[in-house]
Order: sequence, then structure tokens, then C-alpha cells
Amino acid sequence: MEKLWYQECNTGRRFIIKLEPGTHVTAALLDFARAKGLPFASLVSAVGSVRDVEFTGIQAGAHLPITEPRIKSHRIEGPLELMGLEGNIAQTAAKELHARFYIIASKSSGEVVGGHLVDAEVFATCEIVLAEYLVEGIERYHSTSGGVDTLFIDEESAPI
Amino acid sequence: MEKLWYQECNTGRRFIIKLEPGTHVTAALLDFARAKGLPFASLVSAVGSVRDVEFTGIQAGAHLPITEPRIKSHRIEGPLELMGLEGNIAQTAAKELHARFYIIASKSSGEVVGGHLVDAEVFATCEIVLAEYLVEGIERYHSTSGGVDTLFIDEESAPI
Amino acid sequence: MEKLWYQECNTGRRFIIKLEPGTHVTAALLDFARAKGLPFASLVSAVGSVRDVEFTGIQAGAHLPITEPRIKSHRIEGPLELMGLEGNIAQTAAKELHARFYIIASKSSGEVVGGHLVDAEVFATCEIVLAEYLVEGIERYHSTSGGVDTLFIDEESAPI
Repeated sequence: MEKLWYQECNTGRRFIIKLEPGTHVTAALLDFARAKGLPFASLVSAVGSVRDVEFTGIQAGAHLPITEPRIKSHRIEGPLELMGLEGNIAQTAAKELHARFYIIASKSSGEVVGGHLVDAEVFATCEIVLAEYLVEGIERYHSTSGGVDTLFIDEESAPI
Repeated sequence: MEKLWYQECNTGRRFIIKLEPGTHVTAALLDFARAKGLPFASLVSAVGSVRDVEFTGIQAGAHLPITEPRIKSHRIEGPLELMGLEGNIAQTAAKELHARFYIIASKSSGEVVGGHLVDAEVFATCEIVLAEYLVEGIERYHSTSGGVDTLFIDEESAPI
Repeated sequence: MEKLWYQECNTGRRFIIKLEPGTHVTAALLDFARAKGLPFASLVSAVGSVRDVEFTGIQAGAHLPITEPRIKSHRIEGPLELMGLEGNIAQTAAKELHARFYIIASKSSGEVVGGHLVDAEVFATCEIVLAEYLVEGIERYHSTSGGVDTLFIDEESAPI
């Protein structure tokens, strides 16, 4: 079963962002996207350091849909080096902006940890490049079969 | 020994892609690139979750060229959170498209694993931003000294 | 405390770069940026393999500012698969270019390690996409409260 949906889009504005210590990254980026009216934005780069990092993973052996007992929560006090925030911000059908962010960070041991980001607080600094994409026909919705919020793309490619 | 080759290029099309559960990511992206006629494309972002992930690493202490005994294969049933697919798709001299992808994913323990991607199957969802670059003079070829497929760049910069 | 600073910027040149075995990545990219006169550049993608990797992490439980005893140094002979170099190159007030790079790499065990990159040597190959951003009012400076070099952004957004 190979299924791919896509939309071609134009590049919009680019933003270089710095978050100060103590800022909550998920909330701050969502507020920024709301203030700037970004219909769809993708994280290009995010580095610095974070503390009080909360993220989730999927239980090994889990089946779809992803339900509460199949999710494992993690909270790490840190501070951790931040190597990346990945993911995007998209609109729901109700024109609300939702984020789907993932974090890649490292402990003082050099070991890298991460997963689906709930939230994290900036420790010393956080430098971000955020790219706006001008696109239509994409909405974030809840997939009941998958158990996750994901993108609905209003056009299908059948290259395969 | 410092040696750098480069090509300046123009940005081409941007694609926001969603892969459904069960889709094989490497095959699906290569088929997409073939269908769209992308001469060179780089992964900007890829998040979601994957299962049955196959990737390779290099044996510690290995010397060049990278030969079969110097490669360690991994297969993880998962599912894993997907924090990133990195790398690019490029043409060979014979105009065939080849992918060089790397994966960054996390276990339910929060531990991050990854390496040179062979293939992975989408678990709940996979959201990708793929960027086309319009460039000439770049080809994927097999480096016998390195033992890997890499980029041949038909022009040399000597900034150093 | 939620504080966000930003600058909107235009996309500039895009470069596809290949580094040969033995090249030091931090030095090579900085020299390239100097030779090309890049005022601000962000790493989009960097894959391949590296050896003799030196990076730092932050001691668990550390407080600001980040001082020498609060930093943990790591040196890994490798070779390691390279899944990503993240971060940016920016100018100081004195118009000198400084890099702030982070590395994501994996051991033969599949375990991912990384942190704030000091330097690494290319093993078999390294393929990089580097994006120039045309922006004014951004400088790299040393934050005494944070103990780190970070971006000074000459304009404030108050979306939150």
C-alpha cells in the first residue's frame, strides 16, 4: 500500500527568530504564527538550549490508532543542548493554527533524546528559522484511524 | 586537506507531502521525484511515525573505503516517532534518480536512533516538505575511494 | 516570561556543497561563507559521515550563565554517520563571521549522539545545502547573562 498526497506551494516570508530564556517554545511560535497570519509554516532550523522538556514517544509494539495507553510521556529537567525542532504549523478547518513539533536534544552525556514535543522552555538562547509556505487545500485534522492530528491534503497525486 | 566543491543553484518548486500508513518512504519519495521530474531535491522536513525501520551505521574504527564488513545493519520494528529524514535525491550520469536519505527517530524510551536509511514504513502519518533545486553540473556517482555514492560537482571552489 | 525577537528576511543564494574526506567542516563552511560574502546563512541539510567529532553538552542541573565548569566536552573518534548539521553563520558587530553549529550523528550501534559542534572531520563524504538569507539588523554577540554567543536582533516583535 503506497499512498502519497501532495500540494505544490510557493515560498512565502522567511523569519529569523530569537527566543529569550524562560520562553515556552511551542506557545511562542504559535502566538507568532497567529500574529503574522501564517497559513502554513515549517521549521527550517532551531538551535540553542532548553530545559524542562516534555515530549512523547510511541510504545514499542503499538498498533493503530495511537491511543493514550500507547503513548509514553517524558519530562527531562535538563538543561539540554537543542539540535533541532522539526515540523510545521497548519490551519484546521476552523482556521485555528495547530503545531506539530518534534524535538531533537542532547544530554550532558552526549546522548540524544527526543520525540513529539509537548513543550520546552528556552535555557540560554534559541535561534530559529521559520519558513512560510503559501498553499491552499491543506488542513490539519484528526485522523481517527491513525489516532493523530495530521494533514488533510485536498488533492491526490498518483505517481506510484 | 581541505577540499570543498559547490554549485550555486536556484530554488525550484516546493512540495508539501503526506504519506499514508503502510507507505514505504524511500520508494514513495523516489517515485514522486521521478513523476515530477525533479533533477535535485532536498528534504526540508519530515515528521510523523514509522515502523520496520532499516538503516545502517559505520563500524567504529573503520577505514576508507566503506566496504560491506565495515557496515552495520539495523532493523527496528518500532513504531518510532519520526523526527527527521535528511538528505537528497540526485541524478546519476544515466539520468536515474538516486536517494541518499538519513533517518532520525526515537524509541518509546525517548532514546534517539538513526543512520543511513534503507527503508521505513509509515506508521500513523508522515508529513514532509521537499524542496526542488534547479542546478546543473551535479551528478550522483560511486566514489571508489570512499566506498559510497556521493555527489560529483562539476566545478571547484577554492575559498580555502 | 515570553520574549521573542525577529526579523523578516529574503531568501538569497542557495549552495549545494560537497566536502572531501579529511576536510574540517566548521572551518571549511566558515571559509566558504567568507569567500562568498554571506551575511547570514543557515544550514538546510548536511549528511554523510564524519570522524574525530568534538562537541559539547551542558551539565545537567546547570544554571545560567553557561560557564566553563557547566560545559561537558566530548570527542568521538568514530567514524559516525552524519544525519545533520544544524545552525547558522552570522556576522558580529565587527563584521566577522561566526558559526553556531550543532551536530547529529550516529554510532555503529545506531545510537545517536550530538551537541554543540566544535569541529569534525569528513570521513567518506559530506553533502550540504546552505541557504543565504538577506537580512539587516542581526548580529552575533556574547550574551553575558546566558554565557553564550547568540543573535542580537535589532527589532522586537510583541505578538505575545
